Amino acid sequence: MSPALAIRPAVSADDDAIWRILEPTFRAGETYPIPRDVSRADALAYWRSSGHAVYVAEDAGAIVGTYYLRANTKGGGAHVANCGYMVASEAQGRGMARAMCAHSLDQARERGFAAMQFNFVIASNKRAVRLWQACGFAIVGRLPRAFRHPRLGAVDAYVMYRTL
Amino acid sequence: MSPALAIRPAVSADDDAIWRILEPTFRAGETYPIPRDVSRADALAYWRSSGHAVYVAEDAGAIVGTYYLRANTKGGGAHVANCGYMVASEAQGRGMARAMCAHSLDQARERGFAAMQFNFVIASNKRAVRLWQACGFAIVGRLPRAFRHPRLGAVDAYVMYRTL
Repeated sequence: MSPALAIRPAVSADDDAIWRILEPTFRAGETYPIPRDVSRADALAYWRSSGHAVYVAEDAGAIVGTYYLRANTKGGGAHVANCGYMVASEAQGRGMARAMCAHSLDQARERGFAAMQFNFVIASNKRAVRLWQACGFAIVGRLPRAFRHPRLGAVDAYVMYRTL
Repeated sequence: MSPALAIRPAVSADDDAIWRILEPTFRAGETYPIPRDVSRADALAYWRSSGHAVYVAEDAGAIVGTYYLRANTKGGGAHVANCGYMVASEAQGRGMARAMCAHSLDQARERGFAAMQFNFVIASNKRAVRLWQACGFAIVGRLPRAFRHPRLGAVDAYVMYRTL
């Protein structure tokens, strides 16, 4: 992780930078169950949904990553958090996702969550699966052929979970 | 299943009947991860969310059950359906949930879905777990202590899945 990395809450002036990170990932359609032709407005409305706390990661002043934190369900399930993370393609491999995950685990604990769940980690996204395992998440569910990958066809998705 | 049972799309005039079914279940807080003090407006907004197809089950003209059908995710995951079912307390044990599930599986097939997933079946709701297994669903994931049951404390929730 870069010593110049800072993670802070997103403000509306960050929308352009967030969209620059989201767009190529959603267009590729390989890692998130989001329509590949999603509009800027719909993508930002999803990422910044009501109930999402959104953060950005700045490396030497440039926004290179973003994540959201929310309660995965309500009522009797509201003690389990959920996050989505995304790193700019030019910043891959520099520990940004790991740094954002660590930050999100701290934020979730501060907010009183007792666990965190990822609902849909696509099995072919092996780098992500390994990273979440290194961050303490276990595969607790396997959704058979639940994702249609644009290059690989039907692949499994994992449910991953850890206590906080 | 009663020979007088008919399942049809819900119309807005059914809102009162749907709320009469939802309210006691949400207030009990034992089977859905929804706030126990949810308002009528929020409960109906949830049940009838954009993208939900909502049905009601009428037995001899009285609405005794309701369910929704939706895509569980979008994009590469949009071929997997999700449903929520609820039966009026006075109509429990008469096969209504099973009839609605069978109806929903047909509806999902007609709409081109390839699988159906239940995201959060609370393990203490043993009647539901057994019924979904009888309807062809397998437990594909276990979320440890993901639900705080008002009487039983922390209990697991299951992810259940079947192909169509």
